[in-house]
Amino acid sequence: MKLATLRTSNNGTTAALAVGEDTYLPLPARDVGALLADPAWRTVVSEAAAAAAHADTVSVPASGLAPLLPRAGKVICCGLNYGDHIQEMGRELPEYPTLFAKYADTLVGASDAVEVHGSGRVDWEAELAVVVGAELFRAAEDRAREAIAGYTVANDVSMRDWQNRTLQWFQGKAFDGTTPVGPVMLTADEVDGDFEVRGYVNGELVQHGNTGTLVFGPAKLLSYISQFTTLRPGDLVLTGTPGGVGMGMTPPRFLNDGDVLTTEIDGIGRLENVFRIHAPVTANA
Amino acid sequence: MKLATLRTSNNGTTAALAVGEDTYLPLPARDVGALLADPAWRTVVSEAAAAAAHADTVSVPASGLAPLLPRAGKVICCGLNYGDHIQEMGRELPEYPTLFAKYADTLVGASDAVEVHGSGRVDWEAELAVVVGAELFRAAEDRAREAIAGYTVANDVSMRDWQNRTLQWFQGKAFDGTTPVGPVMLTADEVDGDFEVRGYVNGELVQHGNTGTLVFGPAKLLSYISQFTTLRPGDLVLTGTPGGVGMGMTPPRFLNDGDVLTTEIDGIGRLENVFRIHAPVTANA
Repeated sequence: MKLATLRTSNNGTTAALAVGEDTYLPLPARDVGALLADPAWRTVVSEAAAAAAHADTVSVPASGLAPLLPRAGKVICCGLNYGDHIQEMGRELPEYPTLFAKYADTLVGASDAVEVHGSGRVDWEAELAVVVGAELFRAAEDRAREAIAGYTVANDVSMRDWQNRTLQWFQGKAFDGTTPVGPVMLTADEVDGDFEVRGYVNGELVQHGNTGTLVFGPAKLLSYISQFTTLRPGDLVLTGTPGGVGMGMTPPRFLNDGDVLTTEIDGIGRLENVFRIHAPVTANA
Repeated sequence: MKLATLRTSNNGTTAALAVGEDTYLPLPARDVGALLADPAWRTVVSEAAAAAAHADTVSVPASGLAPLLPRAGKVICCGLNYGDHIQEMGRELPEYPTLFAKYADTLVGASDAVEVHGSGRVDWEAELAVVVGAELFRAAEDRAREAIAGYTVANDVSMRDWQNRTLQWFQGKAFDGTTPVGPVMLTADEVDGDFEVRGYVNGELVQHGNTGTLVFGPAKLLSYISQFTTLRPGDLVLTGTPGGVGMGMTPPRFLNDGDVLTTEIDGIGRLENVFRIHAPVTANA
């Protein structure tokens, strides 16, 4: 099944079950993270679905999709994780995952406009993201695999000028409202195999990878992270991006005001975000 | 005045006003962060103090101090920020602050034991930390200065083996329960000048710096961070550490099981934490 977080009136949100094209059944939780915090969440969804009449469903345009996990306690990202891309760049496969953190404030919905202030080098990173479904601390890989609630689509949009100001990437990765996520979480029980991840700028395919080539797959990443910090239901782990980012092009290419970034994973869904780039002048280009 | 977060029965916490040596007046908020979320927090404290009888105060040993901000939404750290230390190392002063993020799970109380699993290179970083008192987004330095609620003591304890596994420091900085913070927040209105920051291992002075030599002072840091992400009441910004960390010694020196790390800032207070280091074998030394 596919779960989403919908915007409601009064600036609220609700978790919902996708029941058809743009059609959802609202669930008794304020977002998908709050739903997953109930260990019986699968039962909650099943019972809501069984009890629902047609009149209980709502038709919601893409603009009604909130960030899937608007209150995620942790959003942890992995860099340099697509083996084929690393090897084509002539580098060795890493022994450990390169990890960095961002906050839930970075997240935006699947068709929200992304407003960027003060960066002239806005780049894309299409990614598969893993949604944590149970508490994990110092967990083995098998246990971590069982704790995966599902998968979603994200774009770890990166302000390369800020990212490269210092050795630590955080400031270029943590701009509020710049990481699209959604449109839905596909539950892990419906996943059998790898995902095709694609990124497009104004309809042109710029990134394409298969998660089968990840050096650190979802369960391994969750297990590794849990060796030092507790993961909880509703936390989000981004698995890294395949080749084709703008910074790696010759000449480098970045998003312009008005560009549309599309991020798509077969079987999960698609993000489509227009960029509003304010004051793009970069002090240290 | 000095504010603290105390442990209560039933694994709860309460904000409190320090009224004497180990003596506190509990306040109507679950921790200092929740107190600061009320824009009228100064009035709340004054009124509680005015109405209090002697019987309302509690005597609390150091072990009763919870992490000052147990639910901080953001804990953002600055590295490489003491100008005298940077210059003595022969480096140039940085143009931009080096920033990285951690989560509230890393925080522990002023006299809590610090339990570390799986690192053999546990190092110290005594730091002044700034507590945010108002929402800041794209704020100028003057506005950021006004938004400082107060100052506290922290130690950005770092697992150097994990920190140096990859280019991004996060995994070595984000071990749960390894960043002591407290014992109190000294409110900004009582601060006039710079702070002396000291770190000791088993009573031996190993670090000493003066915050007057910070390249990026508290207000500048908050303003800079707010250009990309919103800071809110109860968020915590660590300002960096002076020279004298174990990694920089010849030979390098790290904490051993049973060592006591003391972190002290004149006028604010002192952290004293015993280290319990489990399975210290480092795979890649």
